[in-house]
Amino acid sequence: MKLWKKNTDSLKEVETFTVGRDREMDLYLAPFDVLGSLAHIQMLESVGLLKKDELAELQGALRTIYADIQKGTFELQEDVEDIHSQVELLLTQRIGEAGKKIHSARSRNDQVLVDLKLFLRSEIETTVNAVLPFFELLQTQSEKYKSFLLPGYTHLQLAMPSSFGLWFGAYAESLVDDLVSLKAAYDIINKNPLGSAAGYGSSFPINRTLTTELLGFATLNYNVVYAQMGRGKAERVVAQALANIADTLSRMSMDATLYLNQNFSFISFPPELTTGSSIMPHKKNPDVFELIRSHCNRIKALPNEILMMTTNLPSGYHRDLQLLKEHLFPAFKTLRDCIEMAGLMFSNIEVKPDLLKDGKYKYLFTVDLVNQLVLEGTPFRDAYIQVGRSVDDGTYKVPEQTAIKDPHEGSIQNLCTEQIRSLMTQTVTSFDFEAVHRAYRRLLNAE
Amino acid sequence: MKLWKKNTDSLKEVETFTVGRDREMDLYLAPFDVLGSLAHIQMLESVGLLKKDELAELQGALRTIYADIQKGTFELQEDVEDIHSQVELLLTQRIGEAGKKIHSARSRNDQVLVDLKLFLRSEIETTVNAVLPFFELLQTQSEKYKSFLLPGYTHLQLAMPSSFGLWFGAYAESLVDDLVSLKAAYDIINKNPLGSAAGYGSSFPINRTLTTELLGFATLNYNVVYAQMGRGKAERVVAQALANIADTLSRMSMDATLYLNQNFSFISFPPELTTGSSIMPHKKNPDVFELIRSHCNRIKALPNEILMMTTNLPSGYHRDLQLLKEHLFPAFKTLRDCIEMAGLMFSNIEVKPDLLKDGKYKYLFTVDLVNQLVLEGTPFRDAYIQVGRSVDDGTYKVPEQTAIKDPHEGSIQNLCTEQIRSLMTQTVTSFDFEAVHRAYRRLLNAE
Amino acid sequence: MKLWKKNTDSLKEVETFTVGRDREMDLYLAPFDVLGSLAHIQMLESVGLLKKDELAELQGALRTIYADIQKGTFELQEDVEDIHSQVELLLTQRIGEAGKKIHSARSRNDQVLVDLKLFLRSEIETTVNAVLPFFELLQTQSEKYKSFLLPGYTHLQLAMPSSFGLWFGAYAESLVDDLVSLKAAYDIINKNPLGSAAGYGSSFPINRTLTTELLGFATLNYNVVYAQMGRGKAERVVAQALANIADTLSRMSMDATLYLNQNFSFISFPPELTTGSSIMPHKKNPDVFELIRSHCNRIKALPNEILMMTTNLPSGYHRDLQLLKEHLFPAFKTLRDCIEMAGLMFSNIEVKPDLLKDGKYKYLFTVDLVNQLVLEGTPFRDAYIQVGRSVDDGTYKVPEQTAIKDPHEGSIQNLCTEQIRSLMTQTVTSFDFEAVHRAYRRLLNAE
Amino acid sequence: MKLWKKNTDSLKEVETFTVGRDREMDLYLAPFDVLGSLAHIQMLESVGLLKKDELAELQGALRTIYADIQKGTFELQEDVEDIHSQVELLLTQRIGEAGKKIHSARSRNDQVLVDLKLFLRSEIETTVNAVLPFFELLQTQSEKYKSFLLPGYTHLQLAMPSSFGLWFGAYAESLVDDLVSLKAAYDIINKNPLGSAAGYGSSFPINRTLTTELLGFATLNYNVVYAQMGRGKAERVVAQALANIADTLSRMSMDATLYLNQNFSFISFPPELTTGSSIMPHKKNPDVFELIRSHCNRIKALPNEILMMTTNLPSGYHRDLQLLKEHLFPAFKTLRDCIEMAGLMFSNIEVKPDLLKDGKYKYLFTVDLVNQLVLEGTPFRDAYIQVGRSVDDGTYKVPEQTAIKDPHEGSIQNLCTEQIRSLMTQTVTSFDFEAVHRAYRRLLNAE
Repeated sequence: MKLWKKNTDSLKEVETFTVGRDREMDLYLAPFDVLGSLAHIQMLESVGLLKKDELAELQGALRTIYADIQKGTFELQEDVEDIHSQVELLLTQRIGEAGKKIHSARSRNDQVLVDLKLFLRSEIETTVNAVLPFFELLQTQSEKYKSFLLPGYTHLQLAMPSSFGLWFGAYAESLVDDLVSLKAAYDIINKNPLGSAAGYGSSFPINRTLTTELLGFATLNYNVVYAQMGRGKAERVVAQALANIADTLSRMSMDATLYLNQNFSFISFPPELTTGSSIMPHKKNPDVFELIRSHCNRIKALPNEILMMTTNLPSGYHRDLQLLKEHLFPAFKTLRDCIEMAGLMFSNIEVKPDLLKDGKYKYLFTVDLVNQLVLEGTPFRDAYIQVGRSVDDGTYKVPEQTAIKDPHEGSIQNLCTEQIRSLMTQTVTSFDFEAVHRAYRRLLNAE
Repeated sequence: MKLWKKNTDSLKEVETFTVGRDREMDLYLAPFDVLGSLAHIQMLESVGLLKKDELAELQGALRTIYADIQKGTFELQEDVEDIHSQVELLLTQRIGEAGKKIHSARSRNDQVLVDLKLFLRSEIETTVNAVLPFFELLQTQSEKYKSFLLPGYTHLQLAMPSSFGLWFGAYAESLVDDLVSLKAAYDIINKNPLGSAAGYGSSFPINRTLTTELLGFATLNYNVVYAQMGRGKAERVVAQALANIADTLSRMSMDATLYLNQNFSFISFPPELTTGSSIMPHKKNPDVFELIRSHCNRIKALPNEILMMTTNLPSGYHRDLQLLKEHLFPAFKTLRDCIEMAGLMFSNIEVKPDLLKDGKYKYLFTVDLVNQLVLEGTPFRDAYIQVGRSVDDGTYKVPEQTAIKDPHEGSIQNLCTEQIRSLMTQTVTSFDFEAVHRAYRRLLNAE
Repeated sequence: MKLWKKNTDSLKEVETFTVGRDREMDLYLAPFDVLGSLAHIQMLESVGLLKKDELAELQGALRTIYADIQKGTFELQEDVEDIHSQVELLLTQRIGEAGKKIHSARSRNDQVLVDLKLFLRSEIETTVNAVLPFFELLQTQSEKYKSFLLPGYTHLQLAMPSSFGLWFGAYAESLVDDLVSLKAAYDIINKNPLGSAAGYGSSFPINRTLTTELLGFATLNYNVVYAQMGRGKAERVVAQALANIADTLSRMSMDATLYLNQNFSFISFPPELTTGSSIMPHKKNPDVFELIRSHCNRIKALPNEILMMTTNLPSGYHRDLQLLKEHLFPAFKTLRDCIEMAGLMFSNIEVKPDLLKDGKYKYLFTVDLVNQLVLEGTPFRDAYIQVGRSVDDGTYKVPEQTAIKDPHEGSIQNLCTEQIRSLMTQTVTSFDFEAVHRAYRRLLNAE
Repeated sequence: MKLWKKNTDSLKEVETFTVGRDREMDLYLAPFDVLGSLAHIQMLESVGLLKKDELAELQGALRTIYADIQKGTFELQEDVEDIHSQVELLLTQRIGEAGKKIHSARSRNDQVLVDLKLFLRSEIETTVNAVLPFFELLQTQSEKYKSFLLPGYTHLQLAMPSSFGLWFGAYAESLVDDLVSLKAAYDIINKNPLGSAAGYGSSFPINRTLTTELLGFATLNYNVVYAQMGRGKAERVVAQALANIADTLSRMSMDATLYLNQNFSFISFPPELTTGSSIMPHKKNPDVFELIRSHCNRIKALPNEILMMTTNLPSGYHRDLQLLKEHLFPAFKTLRDCIEMAGLMFSNIEVKPDLLKDGKYKYLFTVDLVNQLVLEGTPFRDAYIQVGRSVDDGTYKVPEQTAIKDPHEGSIQNLCTEQIRSLMTQTVTSFDFEAVHRAYRRLLNAE
């Protein structure tokens, strides 16, 4: 059923093709559609386009629908095209005339846009909340395995000593920067498009500043033509930020599969976290890390896909944008699943101690030897050549390890865990999710 | 010539292949390599690894090299492998022993990293400085063409009235959000990696906080393993932000080529800004916009390329990263050229007045008619059906246009130019480029 | 339930995460898994690893399962991990011991690979069968609208006369080349990997040439390590070919949305093939073309996604490959839906006659005028300048159109429809799908 | 200088921006531009648009230019816009009036197109000629190291025995399929676009079949609108094929860096093929493989870049296409350099013998044990469980290795080197480059 039905029906095939998977995607947007409508009607009343009692009726009905959605009892009827139509239909059925007025001064275009932004805002919050405990786990493990040395490689060749303290800590710090990029995405989408209608505004004397406040947006997309350009752009900037988090996870998983490989054997996991083979009875495979890597690499391809689908479209809405939902919407949960599984794995990791005592790692310490010579007064270039010769003629010996005085910031013996945590706290605080919660509580009359 | 030459030479073919275009790319980094060294030696002296007089000698020599670079008289010698070697070589030639000490407590890896970050920081500043006047031009044109109506399209079908005020203003506002994403990239790269050496730190008691201040970085990449992960990540996040600016420009160019098309004929340009055809004597082609579009679309593919080149590399430096420079480094200038050419075009644009008086645009006003009925009391759905019928039976007439009372934020009659400018100012101010300038003046003894 | 279960179970969370959407994806593979097994057991019997009666029992049971799959009555049980386990389980339940022998000399890895290749082969055939009638429709429309002139644009500027005959015919010919690329993909995947086991072959004296013949493969992936590399590569080369077809469709859709735009108004469609707007009662939107364009642009991003997920994985199977199914498998149907919808639209297209009689198109004929002068003896460059001047000083007149003598190949008056059809026939014939049908009929005892 | 100059000049800035790097790119096209012109004029004469003596003069002048290009003495003059103008200018200067006639019945558009296709055809040939000796080297090494066993990994976990014979042979076979995809690209581009003029044909009675034969094309792009769509499509399909070869090389390089890693230590290279570190005197880094991997991964991103630059452009030429040259043209040489460097490395590889004698690899043989039990009559599932238990309770022992009877196709003991070579020969032969050589010799009067 279509609300804007005049007297021609689309052909069944056309309807099936154009609706596609949109009804499925709309379920992601359902609660946000109601929140958007609650703000819209309150504004309509404030400018005289709804009467006070109509507003009250509509608010009651919308809050009931919202509660149904939260309880999981809300459904899209078979013959209803989308979530927006379903909500409008229920309102008209339940309270009559007032329901027909709700679409004044807006279009499905800005309704979808506002739903999309509220949805993305919420998913970003949930993502931050998933990243945070994982960050803390990494920091904990970094401190716990501070003294577990690990060969450091460059060019995949033995280079210098590293440690599991550094390794876990590096990925923790990486997540800080990833959230910086997520915060920028948040700032870009946290602007109100409502009132832009079909992308050209309307002749109604609406108050967009009011809906901005009601929905807890930081500000408006002022220009209505630009607001409409938010479709595609919002998805893209958020996908870029997800790709950044995903890249951190996929690289970490690559390391993990390598360190688990029997030639490295740096780490291991309890058997119930690994899987077997259909023909090799001895296998304990790190499938979890391989799938995290693969999921995350797919997420890394998402911004490019979005660009491919939007590039060279002239300004103004195009139906093409509908399909952007299909890969982006589930990606949030996928990424969070990956984070949780990585958390499960790293909570149960077993790290092998004393790795560097193995003679095959002896050249990891040539730089230490060079440095000792330098500290004793030899110019760096000369010390470098001297140690190089000892390696070539076989006289090189692993230098004795003495405690380093004043180890520098971020090195094995000075991990700066606190400083990194403080950067994270600062970043997370800057999101100010509570401002949104307050706005929603007011809209839902829950305060 | 290679500074780390021991007694085996690489085969000529290997050297040619591995050096590749790196000497060319290194010229981009030259001034920043000197700045990085100036900070490094001042720190070395502060921790006792250089003597006061050695520091003074080195500072003098480095500042001379910096001046040569600025004058354009600095060259990479034929047989010198890279910029870092060239600088070290000059120092050794000019001041002897002290030159050999400069590489203490650092590696080419962190030297390249710090050069890269200083370079990116500088390019971001220049990019912001190119965006700003273009933003201002768009805002100026937005106000100038405020009353020049334009058909607004959705689905590329006539939809509702728009205006050149809205059109120019939309792209201005788009740039604000693009700079928000550039600011996040700036924050991510504006962290000091120096001291991470080959990616595993060193046993020297260096002071990374000091070099952070000397180079005007906002903070450190604390963890040395993470600092090294900055290669690839720095390039990627900056490329993502460039892609966002590029997307704004390419879409704008798509609109321009369409509006220039004779079926639209909304805008025109003086003939000296267009080009001809080798066989069609009547042609005046908008090549500038087509090339902006194409350059920008290529920049949009850059983050994906960077991801393709770095995906699934385990942690630790890999030589693969060297090639990231080749497409990214010139992209900054390309993007700025595009911005400047777009500025040239839009400074000379001629916009056709009274477009909407043409009868073929009459249906643009159906929504205005619906809205009038709504404002007179008809529920929206009923008004929509009523106007729809008048379109179908031929009785529809363009409603009289009366001035809108209280036009809403961001609409044709209320462009919110000031508010958008204020968002831009706020974003640009947040970069605080002056902090960097101050640091550089100190390093160069220019204060 | 897992067939390779020893005595440790994976944690429930690990199982859920690793199975993911694989059971859903496996349904695509079900019939091919049975066909692969039918070939495998016949070979096992031929080398003495199954007895004659065991073979007969297994064949009977497998053919029953195949029939169930075709009827749609086959299901994956809740607790069974994948299609391969389900089939093996059914066999063991139904015929006992012989069921346990079926997995000799193969691994799930080569089983999935062979299933995948049979599936891709089948999807390619179905795709060719969808392209063909669409190609014929385009050729029919090309002939039908041969004399319907259309402005030809370069740089989106009016250039020279074109025609709907050329326009339809161009996309028809494009499909020929797209099928050439699909044929290469077919040739690459139409090679038997069975017998490569986990990617390193086995010590069984199996006969891979026999299974190659039984399954109708053109040849083998000989080297077992290379056979395993087929995972990822098979998906990629097929996705590249799909992207090529998709690009033809998306460009055609872009043209269609432009031609439908009211400023062009070259074509129209019956209202039941268009859709309306929620606020603009006059809208008849070309959503079908926009969604074809968007679906196809997404398919164009698929090869890149596959590359992102497989790049820098060392040789040997990785679980990452599992996820390649999720976007590729449904893409075949999506692409065919797009082809069918494009067919529906173009079957009902209305093309506007006499477009070029409109004065605004007069400069389309300047080249004709130049050419007339050339044919009368003026050197080309001089004629070009002369006509250019007439345009500039306003004396240019549309030359009289006289029938062209000997119009050249592929021009408006000589569309070469037959020659293009013949290229298509030649390409389609080269697939030789019948060879596969014959092999399957034998395996299923249907001859 | 521009040949189509009328009386307005483009602004200097516009000219600089639009010319861009095109003059540099045009040097790649120079010889092909002359060949295209030689065919074009011979055809013009055959249809009466040139006189016999004019043809002879033009042929003489063009062959001189061709010889200059081959000798490296041809130059683009400072003020000449492109290669096409330069050639036409030289002709006009040298032989006068006849030079002005050469552009009859063609446009720069189809001239660039035909140049592009001849260039791509030539580069494909050179690429095949580079792949072939590398393929042979891989096959030689495969046979040479046939008995050098290697651990085979799945999930990067020890799986089953592999061999260097299999490893080298796998990449050899991979190149066969890569050339199948390159052959499809060749077939798609090996079609004559000449005569399509600006993309809409012309009113001249030209003979496109004749130029097709003269240039050695397999057939025509018949439809002129489709011929023009070849811009972008030709580049894309060729880039896809290059990406396929690149993927083979990058994966091989990934393996090589892993096998060189000290934890694996399967292979080594003479020191002059590796590089050192600026701070670690013991380093011998595999930079060549890392750069091959990186170059190849960048090439793998190229088809996506081309798609990003061409997506959603309506049909008809756009200036955007010009920029496609810049990354594609040099990619051929880059890929060949990578092939040659890989050849250099693998010619000098040292493979470690007896790797699998190390006890840490003992579980590689569990499948052999299972298989022995199966060959002795135990059903596969039961044998699998039995061996699995022996691994768990510590009673597992490496089975004695006995020569396998009738080793299957493509396994360690039956590499099928000849069969793979035969597939390669068949593929390479199908290109029939000699047909092109013959045509060119005729055009250049060299027969």
